[in-house]
Amino acid sequence: MDLRTGIGTDVHAFAPEGSGRPMRLACLDWPGETGLAGHSDADVAAHAACDAILSAAGLGDLGTQFGTDDPAWAGASGAALLGESARRVRGAGWEIGNVAVQVIGNRPRVGSRRAEAEQAMGAALGAPVSLSATTTDGLGLTGRGEGVAAIATALLTRP
Amino acid sequence: MDLRTGIGTDVHAFAPEGSGRPMRLACLDWPGETGLAGHSDADVAAHAACDAILSAAGLGDLGTQFGTDDPAWAGASGAALLGESARRVRGAGWEIGNVAVQVIGNRPRVGSRRAEAEQAMGAALGAPVSLSATTTDGLGLTGRGEGVAAIATALLTRP
Amino acid sequence: MDLRTGIGTDVHAFAPEGSGRPMRLACLDWPGETGLAGHSDADVAAHAACDAILSAAGLGDLGTQFGTDDPAWAGASGAALLGESARRVRGAGWEIGNVAVQVIGNRPRVGSRRAEAEQAMGAALGAPVSLSATTTDGLGLTGRGEGVAAIATALLTRP
Repeated sequence: MDLRTGIGTDVHAFAPEGSGRPMRLACLDWPGETGLAGHSDADVAAHAACDAILSAAGLGDLGTQFGTDDPAWAGASGAALLGESARRVRGAGWEIGNVAVQVIGNRPRVGSRRAEAEQAMGAALGAPVSLSATTTDGLGLTGRGEGVAAIATALLTRP
Repeated sequence: MDLRTGIGTDVHAFAPEGSGRPMRLACLDWPGETGLAGHSDADVAAHAACDAILSAAGLGDLGTQFGTDDPAWAGASGAALLGESARRVRGAGWEIGNVAVQVIGNRPRVGSRRAEAEQAMGAALGAPVSLSATTTDGLGLTGRGEGVAAIATALLTRP
Repeated sequence: MDLRTGIGTDVHAFAPEGSGRPMRLACLDWPGETGLAGHSDADVAAHAACDAILSAAGLGDLGTQFGTDDPAWAGASGAALLGESARRVRGAGWEIGNVAVQVIGNRPRVGSRRAEAEQAMGAALGAPVSLSATTTDGLGLTGRGEGVAAIATALLTRP
């Protein structure tokens, strides 16, 4: 059996207060939370998970797979990117064992919706996803509330 | 055999100089070093390791397992949290393959006590722990000496 | 079969503009790019990969393996360090399954040379290396263009 590990991280800045930008994180909407800026829905948890499985499969990253020259994926949701990344990873012969994602930031507090987020991400991926969260004690870009980061690892197998 | 990977990171700020706060890192005391602030002992290496195994097992994170509403774990040491996290992960049917932890920061220099720290963390976890360290070339929150970070991965198996 | 996961990160600051310092990243030269500062060639991708396999094998890190007291490795290239790290990991009885490396920074844009970099790193390591890249939306040390970071995971096996 062939086994591969992969890693992915992502960071997006908060949109300006009052911009009306919605918060999308871990394939969920977070009403009442200030959203993250970006061309896509800025779902750092989904993006880190995509990059983790793509890197494990040796398929590059979100930029190489869904680059700006492909209008079909402009503005795609995190769930759509996660589903299509998984399809391409499986198309290369890999099974997805699991993906573990940690969200790093002050807001939103994901703990209360962890099961729901894991279900949504797992449905998009077609494999188990675990979601966890931490803060950085007021330090760095996430501690100062400038943005939200995510980090993910993935395990793939090939018979 | 079922296999899972997990990831965890943690950051704590240095306590103010002269606060008398002791440094606890990687389940060791570091006499003469400025300590890290936090409600717990602020052992970022132990905390990252806990989050790595909990995320691999799909059991959330330190916050969901040992939340502030559970006074039994207020002020718990990194070693105690590591031992109890491992107990809960095993209780969910998983064996812990290994945990790898990297400490990111200027101080303390963990290299000279690496074997001792790996032994202490491994005893708390009941599985092999590797400890490594790096710096960030004077950049970012760790490079400016504002705090110490740690990052960990874990591998779990289930027969 | 014994399986181990490992993790490594590295950060180097950009050398001053006009310093003539060459950019070395992912075992490639990047003509026309401002280089990174450091005693070595400051190849953060290679260094993170070294630390990932060393940590998975429980062999410490670049500092413990190629410390400043060993003049034989002063100024060694990322490729040389990657090759020698792999030799020592194999000498301890491990096979290297794969290494996944993500470069985090504004410059250089590695996407256009991804296959070439993966080939160069894989040749040095003697095992599959995947290279991916991301940015941090203008935030943090990499977003402000102060330096480049890399993060890597590795999977080792032992019969």
